[in-house]
Amino acid sequence: MARIRAGIVGYGRIGKGAEKVIQQNSDFELTAVLTRRSPGELTTDTPSALKVHVDEALNLIGRVDVMILCGGSATDLPMQGPQFAEHFITVDAYGTRAKIPEHFNKMDEISKKAGLVSIISAGWDPGLFSMNRVLAQAVMPYGSGCTFWGKGISHGHSDAIRRVDGVETAVQYTIPIATAVEKARKGKGESLTTRDKHLRECFVVAKPGADKTEIETNIKNMPYYFSDYDTVVHFISRTEFDTNHTGMSHGGIVIHSGKINGSRQTMEFSLDLHNSAEFAASVLVSFARAAHRCHREGRTGALTALDIPVKYLSPKTDEELRKELL
Amino acid sequence: MARIRAGIVGYGRIGKGAEKVIQQNSDFELTAVLTRRSPGELTTDTPSALKVHVDEALNLIGRVDVMILCGGSATDLPMQGPQFAEHFITVDAYGTRAKIPEHFNKMDEISKKAGLVSIISAGWDPGLFSMNRVLAQAVMPYGSGCTFWGKGISHGHSDAIRRVDGVETAVQYTIPIATAVEKARKGKGESLTTRDKHLRECFVVAKPGADKTEIETNIKNMPYYFSDYDTVVHFISRTEFDTNHTGMSHGGIVIHSGKINGSRQTMEFSLDLHNSAEFAASVLVSFARAAHRCHREGRTGALTALDIPVKYLSPKTDEELRKELL
Repeated sequence: MARIRAGIVGYGRIGKGAEKVIQQNSDFELTAVLTRRSPGELTTDTPSALKVHVDEALNLIGRVDVMILCGGSATDLPMQGPQFAEHFITVDAYGTRAKIPEHFNKMDEISKKAGLVSIISAGWDPGLFSMNRVLAQAVMPYGSGCTFWGKGISHGHSDAIRRVDGVETAVQYTIPIATAVEKARKGKGESLTTRDKHLRECFVVAKPGADKTEIETNIKNMPYYFSDYDTVVHFISRTEFDTNHTGMSHGGIVIHSGKINGSRQTMEFSLDLHNSAEFAASVLVSFARAAHRCHREGRTGALTALDIPVKYLSPKTDEELRKELL
Repeated sequence: MARIRAGIVGYGRIGKGAEKVIQQNSDFELTAVLTRRSPGELTTDTPSALKVHVDEALNLIGRVDVMILCGGSATDLPMQGPQFAEHFITVDAYGTRAKIPEHFNKMDEISKKAGLVSIISAGWDPGLFSMNRVLAQAVMPYGSGCTFWGKGISHGHSDAIRRVDGVETAVQYTIPIATAVEKARKGKGESLTTRDKHLRECFVVAKPGADKTEIETNIKNMPYYFSDYDTVVHFISRTEFDTNHTGMSHGGIVIHSGKINGSRQTMEFSLDLHNSAEFAASVLVSFARAAHRCHREGRTGALTALDIPVKYLSPKTDEELRKELL
């Protein structure tokens, strides 16, 4: 069977990760890398892939089967998603939770009109974690569920700290609180408050002469981002920041636990990721395979991880999967 | 919408569990309990449910939407599966791994001919664990996976011990070896041998006057069941057996771990079950919902957990799931 011709839109951490993942999936080939930069300046790891400016994407119609959208949820995907979905099968990891229904509806309308498929919000959360929340709640309606994130960097919270007066740069780690995880395993997940579940630990490089007490107070009292949490602030040097706080580790646990007829049953799905961007890329590539298959079968419109049988993510045949992995 | 009218075939531990689960799912009603015993002797927990002999099942056509087959894999399901699939939508937890393709093909042929749907092997393993093996391998083709079972009773191994000369009764616990679990988390799952992964712990009640040394030797050298494992045999009294070894605890972990571009990524799915029969029943009921939905949408033939989008397991609408759980 012909290989799936993939395009990568955005060549940052996720885009570069997608390229690595495609190299490990023999049913894919990377035919194009799209960028907002000057394409000539890009150095990719796939000599055969065309380097194309995003504004020239229409030249790739007929040469790319699936566009893997690797941009950010804040500004890239709300714009690029609809633009690309008009002409290509797409997959994205759109993650702004409150606006998912809006993004879904827009992508659904455009993809249906185009006779194409777009899979949205296919990362690790939303994405794999969502599948497990639905699975657990469906199998155990008698239980109570909870999602923990971390230990890992929250980019939204790190950005929020960087906007505080006197801050040169900063990073924020979300850390699940161990006692809360244990409570969730005993079926008390839904009774936990925001403060019970996660600690927010901040590493801040202050500008010379800045008032550190004021910075700390401003961070801890920031509504929505920090005021509902126990927050710890450490001031560190730029050198320490560059040495120890530029990693991409992340992960989390989806826990669901409940009793039926007196017996406790607990289901957990967890990820321990040393590079969350590259893992997000791995998830995107597997859903790109699913999007391509859904399109071949005549489906149109937007889909999410909740709509996709797991076999569609795999390059193996149904028979192979039943024999080897069922 | 009308409730899904379920029939339970076989009123043992799983069948009774299915009844409890149906009581907690408001979109279901239990309309019939089928038994090979004399139906009048059954005491169920659902007064409105008909009590029917399995040989009279055809009287239930038009009164049951989905038959939940709760029998065993050794003899019940290979016979009952095809019989029921000819007239009803069915769901089963068929678990004899080597014969799954055979059971699938038979059920597929019959269900297709009948214009109905049968979901097979929908328990926790095969079933939920299978979904996670496929998911992990598809997302991380660069990794290595491993499934651990236990601590829990293996009925096949317990039966095998009971057939040894001089044994009155016995139970066998499968126990994952902690060092092996740690190795799997570091991506060495596929290099582990059978002996590395699980310990087999046996609790045996010997018949009066039996030679315990001989029993122990016969158990430990039994090909396939025990000879490839480290096996521990304890002799206990009938009283201790009845007091401490009649539980249904079980569980396990599916681990997949690999490195992309130098960074390790690890995915785990685990179950900690205090009553594995009741949990199996919970899984069956959620797949009964999926079978009913697949049939409404015009699908026919046999399906497995690998073919079913997770949303089909849930009573919630697509919109609700996207808003609440994605």
